Amino acid sequence: MHLFTSKFVQKPDHVTELPGSVSTPTGFQAAGIAAGLKKSGKLDLGLLICKEPCASAALYTPNAAAAAPITFCRDETSNGSLQGVVVNSGSANACTGAQGLEDARAMAAQAAAKSGIDIKNMAVASTGVIGVTLPMDLVESGITSVADTLTETGGGDFAEAIRTTDKIDKEGAIEVALSGGTVRVGACAKGAGMIAPNMATLLAFITTDAAVPASLLQNLLKQAVTASFNSMSVDGDMSTNDCILVFASGQSGIAVDQDSGDAALFGDALAAVCKGLALKMVADGEGATKVVELNVTGAKDNGEAALVSRAVSNSSLVRTAFFGRDANWGRIMASAGAALAGEKQLLADIYYEKVCLAKGGAVSPDPVDAGQLQNIMAKPEISVTIDLHRGTGSHTMYFSDLTHDYVTLNAEYTT
Amino acid sequence: MHLFTSKFVQKPDHVTELPGSVSTPTGFQAAGIAAGLKKSGKLDLGLLICKEPCASAALYTPNAAAAAPITFCRDETSNGSLQGVVVNSGSANACTGAQGLEDARAMAAQAAAKSGIDIKNMAVASTGVIGVTLPMDLVESGITSVADTLTETGGGDFAEAIRTTDKIDKEGAIEVALSGGTVRVGACAKGAGMIAPNMATLLAFITTDAAVPASLLQNLLKQAVTASFNSMSVDGDMSTNDCILVFASGQSGIAVDQDSGDAALFGDALAAVCKGLALKMVADGEGATKVVELNVTGAKDNGEAALVSRAVSNSSLVRTAFFGRDANWGRIMASAGAALAGEKQLLADIYYEKVCLAKGGAVSPDPVDAGQLQNIMAKPEISVTIDLHRGTGSHTMYFSDLTHDYVTLNAEYTT
Repeated sequence: MHLFTSKFVQKPDHVTELPGSVSTPTGFQAAGIAAGLKKSGKLDLGLLICKEPCASAALYTPNAAAAAPITFCRDETSNGSLQGVVVNSGSANACTGAQGLEDARAMAAQAAAKSGIDIKNMAVASTGVIGVTLPMDLVESGITSVADTLTETGGGDFAEAIRTTDKIDKEGAIEVALSGGTVRVGACAKGAGMIAPNMATLLAFITTDAAVPASLLQNLLKQAVTASFNSMSVDGDMSTNDCILVFASGQSGIAVDQDSGDAALFGDALAAVCKGLALKMVADGEGATKVVELNVTGAKDNGEAALVSRAVSNSSLVRTAFFGRDANWGRIMASAGAALAGEKQLLADIYYEKVCLAKGGAVSPDPVDAGQLQNIMAKPEISVTIDLHRGTGSHTMYFSDLTHDYVTLNAEYTT
Repeated sequence: MHLFTSKFVQKPDHVTELPGSVSTPTGFQAAGIAAGLKKSGKLDLGLLICKEPCASAALYTPNAAAAAPITFCRDETSNGSLQGVVVNSGSANACTGAQGLEDARAMAAQAAAKSGIDIKNMAVASTGVIGVTLPMDLVESGITSVADTLTETGGGDFAEAIRTTDKIDKEGAIEVALSGGTVRVGACAKGAGMIAPNMATLLAFITTDAAVPASLLQNLLKQAVTASFNSMSVDGDMSTNDCILVFASGQSGIAVDQDSGDAALFGDALAAVCKGLALKMVADGEGATKVVELNVTGAKDNGEAALVSRAVSNSSLVRTAFFGRDANWGRIMASAGAALAGEKQLLADIYYEKVCLAKGGAVSPDPVDAGQLQNIMAKPEISVTIDLHRGTGSHTMYFSDLTHDYVTLNAEYTT
């Protein structure tokens, strides 16, 4: 239930962690139940609502094979005034055609009716196996049950209901000190595989009782996601179902105005929450034993740095080497060089933590303490820096290692 | 010693397989010895030469971290008149800076002197671990030995000397019927990991006794490589050391002229040889149990088809599913959709062999014979087609599955 478990994310000074969840901010209720969608009998249907209308922000996957709930939310729900979301795991309702869209719409309609919310303000999200239509009889009886069990402490069950192969919880709550008083933020997320830059199989739901205008909330969310969910990779795949929603109830009575110091403070808190969740996803990456922070510096510009850092982060050879605790900087150099194919000879430096292994594109002439390097490679979190010496652009990515457990999980998950 | 072992490559009617190797065409000699570069004591240094000047063609990796031998060949050898190549395995001489370039030059100089060839016509290639300088004392005594053992039947040892993690041979020879008589082509290659579009850790050497002008040879090589080495992927990584060289001795006395029917016949034979070698590399992909042919059709244009087919071929989720014998077409759809992010909803059909699993972007309404599908997924070679229904562009890629053995090999290979 802690959001800031990684050394790569700092809790801002004006933020205090609270025991709690996505239903902790004033105005929210949530629940999660087992509707029978997962054969295991685990929780698989969740509902999160606000008792009053909210300002909201949303980001959806750009995948051209976007799932039905994504199409529904993007095309049929309100822009900036969502008030609830109904979510299922067990089936992604993706690649399900016209029937899938009808099912997503039916989920929203039923959840909205049960909660007394306008259907235009009810979002839908799904995660699980692709290409299977939802068993709507189970979903419908589930929505009735889940709507009857909504409480202000139901966020934990809601969070559990959205998980698929996740092994660790990804939720929490914070208090944020603003100029007019404190507001609360609650959050939960799911995602452990099929994660890549561009928010892949990632569901994240964030609530706050601050009063934040929808347009400001959308801008702050975009900034927060750029440096968190869009800067991590587990396996380079982008999902059909990614969705991040933020609901601001305003029930604290504390307003966050555009261009104010509070907007910056609230934005920092939101960014820290997103980064905390993102790092938990990388740490929980399917089969992962390690999280690597890859800092690419000295690029021609930030775009080039992003290109190189994503290529290295997605390299199977690089990721397998970290699993093997092998400081194989040559694979990083080769992958960076591949990303810069056709450019002039790469004269990069590569550091594992503070240990320089490559200098000017070649093996470093400095002696390396083998014991120190071995200690670094044994750590669960490792920081690697590659300085391209081509300019001043930079980008940081977070990725996990590629392991036997990844192969086992993904060779055996479904049909 | 067979080049056409895959069902995905057809031997042209005017081509006959011969027992033989890269030294089979008239005029060539080769040898391979153990110089002590591999701790295992296996062959690790090879020399291939033609007794007379050749016309030649060459393709090198565009990787910006290109290895010293690549830089040497590209910048310091003749364009179109190479007469020999000296190759070592065990160390890639990549990321080795000025010393590496000096070492590559010294290898060429010594091999050229021993063979009576102008240094400008002696190519150098290396493969193995990145970031380690060559033990030049071993290399130098090795070159002396290998030059003393050159024979017309030495192609097999040469082929063995260039292997690293390869488990199956990739060599052979053919006879090609042209209008004026028959010519011979010999070939060998190495590559089992770090293979991606753009010829990654791939060394291939092809010889012929046809008389082919260098410019025609270069064009035919480019065409052959586009549909073979540049259309396969084992792990999406691109190497620092890729190099393909073709030597035409002309010693058969049979000329292949530009724009002639013979140019097309010779080109078809060269393409078949390259495709045969490429498919052996995919089959020998580190840890691979399967080869998948992925046909992307109905793309807006061929470029879009290539983009989509490469994305799907490099998807860890797709590749792991094939290892698990799971006809998980949803992962293929999701990966194609990710490659087409931002485009309109994807209404693709997906076939495994002739079985339609998805139609119009959703699960196919046709009943599927589960036993038939199980048989398909158990095969060592599987053909998959995705019709994007966006236009008339197409592209075919070949890739291997992602397995436990891949992880084991790459977590343990080096330091």
